[in-house]
Amino acid sequence: MTLIRDARPEDWPAVWAFAAPIVASGEHFVWEADTPEERLRAYWIEKEAPASAIVAVVGEGSAGDGTPGGRVAGIAEIHPNQPGRGSHIANAGFMVDPAVRGQGLGRALGEAAIARAKADGYTAMQFNAVVATNTRAVDLWHSLGFRTLAVLPATFRHPVQGLVGMHLMFREL
Amino acid sequence: MTLIRDARPEDWPAVWAFAAPIVASGEHFVWEADTPEERLRAYWIEKEAPASAIVAVVGEGSAGDGTPGGRVAGIAEIHPNQPGRGSHIANAGFMVDPAVRGQGLGRALGEAAIARAKADGYTAMQFNAVVATNTRAVDLWHSLGFRTLAVLPATFRHPVQGLVGMHLMFREL
Repeated sequence: MTLIRDARPEDWPAVWAFAAPIVASGEHFVWEADTPEERLRAYWIEKEAPASAIVAVVGEGSAGDGTPGGRVAGIAEIHPNQPGRGSHIANAGFMVDPAVRGQGLGRALGEAAIARAKADGYTAMQFNAVVATNTRAVDLWHSLGFRTLAVLPATFRHPVQGLVGMHLMFREL
Repeated sequence: MTLIRDARPEDWPAVWAFAAPIVASGEHFVWEADTPEERLRAYWIEKEAPASAIVAVVGEGSAGDGTPGGRVAGIAEIHPNQPGRGSHIANAGFMVDPAVRGQGLGRALGEAAIARAKADGYTAMQFNAVVATNTRAVDLWHSLGFRTLAVLPATFRHPVQGLVGMHLMFREL
């Protein structure tokens, strides 16, 4: 059972436990492997309105109140893609613990982020940097109604595959 | 005669003289009309490497050393479009005093920004938010080799025309 709830500052250690290896791999996000934990914590969890963050809690009970039995295994953050006259478009980021891959957490977080963004008044969601080799993510977003408006050529330095493209994705809400 | 040189902090008053009405119009940039001058100054002129800013100086002499006879009438800022593994792609912003429109300042700044970005090691330049109704800018960038990879639908709240698209533009260097 998976529960989606608002992220709290005290969720960070659980998030960092699976986020650190993901960032260190250099395969999915632009951050360098030596990006300070503080910076990533600020990005993912220290959100101020209108930005927000949600987590996926898995495991027995999946208690949303922090009691034992649940484990934070995924996170999504939502923020305006532009300030001011572009602030009605949401941007979002997602990370899921590879240990629970295939259990639908990414999809659950994606659906929840779409619903949250819509509830918060955004009219569309835009992703600027979905690494093309991350086909799991590309396929997930397509299945959730996102269109690839463009593949930005050779914009990501993949540690194994070299220069690869990034998808610019868009979905009305 | 137009001279292009590195921007200096003391250029800001001359920049703000033409930038304030441009920002207040709300037609070309996402910033709201009430965006603090401090914030715009930080964005346009307080650049730290690898980011940079250049200005176009017009008028008699166009002395690059700040002596009388030249007037700052345009500015361009260049910065990495993404951190880390996406930092080889430049992003840039441009503003030209409408009073000198038609004299080629935008083109001169565009060419200089392209040359500077190339010299600084960027491999491409990307614009994320060229307002579609700003046809002067759209046409200029196309003539300088930029391609519109996508028009992001209804992403800009134009004060007169309502929701309009923004061009995602890209040019290899």
